[in-house]
Amino acid sequence: MAQNIYDDPGFFEGYSRLRRSMEGLAGAPEWPALRAMLPELRGLRVLDLGCGYGWFCRWAQEQGARQVDGLDVSARMLERARQLTPAGGIAYTQADLETVELPRASYDLVYSSLAFHYIEDLPALLAKVHDTLVPGGALVFSIEHPIYMAPSHPGWHVDERGQKTWPINGYQVEGPRTTDWLAQGVIKYHRTLGTLLNTLMGTGFTLRHVDEWGPTDELLAAQPELAEERERPMMLLVSARR
Amino acid sequence: MAQNIYDDPGFFEGYSRLRRSMEGLAGAPEWPALRAMLPELRGLRVLDLGCGYGWFCRWAQEQGARQVDGLDVSARMLERARQLTPAGGIAYTQADLETVELPRASYDLVYSSLAFHYIEDLPALLAKVHDTLVPGGALVFSIEHPIYMAPSHPGWHVDERGQKTWPINGYQVEGPRTTDWLAQGVIKYHRTLGTLLNTLMGTGFTLRHVDEWGPTDELLAAQPELAEERERPMMLLVSARR
Repeated sequence: MAQNIYDDPGFFEGYSRLRRSMEGLAGAPEWPALRAMLPELRGLRVLDLGCGYGWFCRWAQEQGARQVDGLDVSARMLERARQLTPAGGIAYTQADLETVELPRASYDLVYSSLAFHYIEDLPALLAKVHDTLVPGGALVFSIEHPIYMAPSHPGWHVDERGQKTWPINGYQVEGPRTTDWLAQGVIKYHRTLGTLLNTLMGTGFTLRHVDEWGPTDELLAAQPELAEERERPMMLLVSARR
Repeated sequence: MAQNIYDDPGFFEGYSRLRRSMEGLAGAPEWPALRAMLPELRGLRVLDLGCGYGWFCRWAQEQGARQVDGLDVSARMLERARQLTPAGGIAYTQADLETVELPRASYDLVYSSLAFHYIEDLPALLAKVHDTLVPGGALVFSIEHPIYMAPSHPGWHVDERGQKTWPINGYQVEGPRTTDWLAQGVIKYHRTLGTLLNTLMGTGFTLRHVDEWGPTDELLAAQPELAEERERPMMLLVSARR
């Protein structure tokens, strides 16, 4: 089975205190950009891969989605998701995205937020996502940006001019990256941006939009601590069509 | 008129000594990857934007292209191109890519090597490229990678572990970057990778392949000095269809 850091007590504890965990979609600064890439959800069948606490699933339900399914590898996350969804109507299922089987041509939208960088065999998962979408169906996802993920020791550096920089190395060397984030030894899988996009196109997807997220002027005025997100891309948001 | 650094005597002198200038396509390490993205050229009408010494134009002619046109802003470059093309059959024309007019639906392939990062109004040029291609026609180009171009002071840094890194800053801030490369004050225009791809898609192109070029194992064995090109992406190669 794939690594399941979310059921590590220390990780879960730390994760549950993140703004995006406590406040949901509104606590994720990239949400407005990601939302703008989504189709109108009314009447759609929606699958969320790595649904976590179910914030997106509940939002999709509010938007009038006809069916909302959330998958996550973490039993703890799903337990919380169910507690937060008292009205029911959303199917939360524990599943390992490395080995999950998905029904053919069954969804109009597959969504995933910051989960794909944990997947070792992403091409296999994307092939399943392609097949579980109806023709014309949409895939909208966010992933840690390869520039953020690539370095052997990711972190900020202040250069001799006082300029904050993000030193890159190993960009062309794809494969696992072990970092300490909320827990020790968290494994993520680095692929170049080119590899990711070519995998999507090779799987049969047509690219629609590629957003290397950065804060807007408005957001920076409200949250000045996000200024460093202008220095390098941290997240990549992609929309594609089957 | 746009900046024409190639007619700066110092720049021209330095440029003419680069391996890719003296040896042509074989002297450009990214050429095999770029060539793999090209359609079969026999019978095609081909336009090269920023043709320089005409290496690609002559290669296209050898491949059996039906018509080969090369545009460049530099009179010196075109003079050399004509000298190197004694057999004729290629139309070399001086043109500023910022303001050039291109005939409608007249080419099967538009090619450009490392020229687009000098173009301030790239969306306008890409719209003209789209319209000068026949439906189904191909655009294949290379451009300096935004990660290479973004920093206010691009260059290598060796960190406290002895690791060579490429420090990034200002990635989200698009616009001119002034560098000293062969001549002082060379102006390039930084756009994020997302902006470039979205501009292509918004112009009506369908993306086919995105290659953040890096050296193969074979090439590294032959040219060990290219090892640093594994640390960060220097060039971006793109193929798209009208």
